[in-house]
Amino acid sequence: MKATVENNDAERAAADIFNSVVASAAIGAAWELGALDELDRDGKVDPADFAARHDLHEPSTRGMFTALASVRVVERRQHTYVMGPNFGEVFRHRSLFHWLSLGCGELFAKMPYVLRNENRVGDYYRRDAAAISYACREINTRYFDPAFWAAMDGLDYAFGVVADLGSGSGERLMQLVERYPGTRGIGVEIAPAALELSRADVAEKGFADRISFFEGDVRALADRPEFAEVDLLTCFMMGHDFWPREDCVAVLRRLRRTFPRVRRFLLGDATRLPGVAETELPIFTLGFEVGHDLMDVYLPTLEEWDGVFAEAGWRCVRRHLITTLTRSVVFELE
Amino acid sequence: MKATVENNDAERAAADIFNSVVASAAIGAAWELGALDELDRDGKVDPADFAARHDLHEPSTRGMFTALASVRVVERRQHTYVMGPNFGEVFRHRSLFHWLSLGCGELFAKMPYVLRNENRVGDYYRRDAAAISYACREINTRYFDPAFWAAMDGLDYAFGVVADLGSGSGERLMQLVERYPGTRGIGVEIAPAALELSRADVAEKGFADRISFFEGDVRALADRPEFAEVDLLTCFMMGHDFWPREDCVAVLRRLRRTFPRVRRFLLGDATRLPGVAETELPIFTLGFEVGHDLMDVYLPTLEEWDGVFAEAGWRCVRRHLITTLTRSVVFELE
Repeated sequence: MKATVENNDAERAAADIFNSVVASAAIGAAWELGALDELDRDGKVDPADFAARHDLHEPSTRGMFTALASVRVVERRQHTYVMGPNFGEVFRHRSLFHWLSLGCGELFAKMPYVLRNENRVGDYYRRDAAAISYACREINTRYFDPAFWAAMDGLDYAFGVVADLGSGSGERLMQLVERYPGTRGIGVEIAPAALELSRADVAEKGFADRISFFEGDVRALADRPEFAEVDLLTCFMMGHDFWPREDCVAVLRRLRRTFPRVRRFLLGDATRLPGVAETELPIFTLGFEVGHDLMDVYLPTLEEWDGVFAEAGWRCVRRHLITTLTRSVVFELE
Repeated sequence: MKATVENNDAERAAADIFNSVVASAAIGAAWELGALDELDRDGKVDPADFAARHDLHEPSTRGMFTALASVRVVERRQHTYVMGPNFGEVFRHRSLFHWLSLGCGELFAKMPYVLRNENRVGDYYRRDAAAISYACREINTRYFDPAFWAAMDGLDYAFGVVADLGSGSGERLMQLVERYPGTRGIGVEIAPAALELSRADVAEKGFADRISFFEGDVRALADRPEFAEVDLLTCFMMGHDFWPREDCVAVLRRLRRTFPRVRRFLLGDATRLPGVAETELPIFTLGFEVGHDLMDVYLPTLEEWDGVFAEAGWRCVRRHLITTLTRSVVFELE
C-alpha cells in the first residue's frame, strides 16, 4: 500500500513540475498583459472578456488562465477566475517569474548545449534583453528601493551630481533628480538599446537638461570631465559583473580615480546564497545562480563582498540586507 | 497563526513553481547528457566527475544537479547525488520535460507576444526542431509502441509496402522492415532536415534498398506511382494537424485515393483531454494543449476523432487507449 501511495505522490509531483513550467510563463504573460493587476483590483477576470478587450487569441488566453489555475494562482468559478491561495505570493514576485521564463527562457532551453565546454565561446547563449529590462525595472522598485531610499535619507551631505552605473531605463536617475531639486544626474550604460530608450524617456519627461547619458563599460571606464563633478555614485544589479575578486578590486579602485569627488557609493545587488538545502531554496536563488553559472558570470557571496572593499580603498559604513530577494544587499561605501 | 501558516505555504509553493522551471530544463539536459541513465544504472553520480568525463562546465553541471535536487529528483549525499523520491517518475517521463523546456522553450518564453492577435501572422513563433525530434523519438517508443506493436501483431494480412506519414527520424520504418522480412517502406515527411537525417540513417543501417523517402505535406499529397503499391499506412503524432474537422474529413478521404490498395491504417496521436480539474491535470496535458493553442493548432478530443472516420470513408475496427500520455490513442482503420 505504501508503495502505491508513494508512487501516486511522485506522479502528482512530476506533473506539478511539468505544469509549473507552463504556469511560470503564464505568470509573466498575465502580468505583462495586465491580467494579474485586474485580478488584484477586481477580484476576478473572465478570460473571454479579457481576450476581447485586449485583442488576444481567446483559446491561448484560456490556456494562460488554465496554467495559472494548475498551480493555484487562480481558481475557476464557472466562466470566471478568482484569486487562488498562491495569488498573493506570486503577485508579489511576478517580476521574478517574468525574468526567469520570458527573460531567460532561451538560455535555459539550451542547457545541454551551454553546458558543453566546446560551445562556451563567443556569444554562446541568448536572453531577451527587452523582457529582462521589463522585469528588472520592477525588481529594482520592489526589492531594492526601500533600502535605497533609506540610504538616501541617511545621507549626511547634500549631493550635487549623481552617477548611476548601469543606468538601464534611467528610472533611478529621474526619481533622484525629481526628489532632490537642483541636482543633476549622469547615466553610464553599456547597452545602446537601453541608452536610446532612456534618453528618449528622459527627454519626454522633461529631464533632458538635468540628466545626461554616456555609453561605456563600467568595468573599464575612461575619465571624462563630467565624471569629476560627481559626488554620489549608485549601482544596482550589476556589481556581480565586476567579479572575480581581483577584477572587482581593480574596478572599485578605478571608480575612485574616475569619480574623485564621490563621497558616498550606494551599491546594491543580489549575492550568492550558500548553505541552503536544495528543497528549501527560496524564490529566485536557483534561477539566479544557475543562470549565471550558465553565462559564466561569477556570483560573490555577501562575505566575499565584505572582504573586498578595504583592499579597494572603500569603507563600508552601512549594510542594508534584503531577504525577500535571495540574499540581496545595499552597501553604503565611502 | 493560521494566516502565517498559509502564508508560509504560499511562499514555499511560489518558490517551488519557480524552481520547477529550472528543474524541468535540468531534467531535459540531464537526460540528453546521460546523467539520468548513469543515475539509473549506478545509483549515484558525482557532478565534478561527470563534468570532467563529458567535458562540461563544472559550475553549470553542479547547478543542473542542484536544480534536480530542488524538486527531489535526486538527493545529495556529501559530494555525490543519488536517486530521490521523484526519480522514477521523472525518469519515465523525461522526454516530456525535454519536449516542453528544450523543444518548446522559445514558444512559451514569448507568451505575451504570441497571445496578441496582431502578432499571429506568418512565422510568429519558434521551436527547436532538433530538440523536438530528439524528444519525439522516445515519446513514440515509450508511449505509442506497445499499442502500435499490438496492432501490428493483430494484423490479419501480410503487408508488402508500408508508408509512414510524418516519418521524422525514419525509426518506425526501419523497425518495421527489420521485423517483417521482404517488406518495403516509404516515408513521407515535410521537414527537409528530418528527411536528410533519416535518409542518412537508413543508408548507414543498410536499409537504403528497402526504404525510400518523399518530401511532402501529408495534408495535400500528390499521387505517385510508388504510393499505389502501399497496403499499410501508419501515422503517429501528427493527426491533429489534419484538423479542424472538415479539413480532417477531406485529408482522410484523399489518403484513401492516394493510397488505393491500403487495407489498414494505424493512426496514433495524443488528444485533447477535457473535464479534468486544473490542479489534477496529469503530466503533458497542459503543455501539449496550451502549446498548440499558442501555435493555433486545433486539438480534437477522442470523441471528435471517433465521429470523423465514417464520413471520411474509413471504419475503425479497434481502438487502443494510452493513458500514460494525457489521453492518447492508436486507431486501427480499414
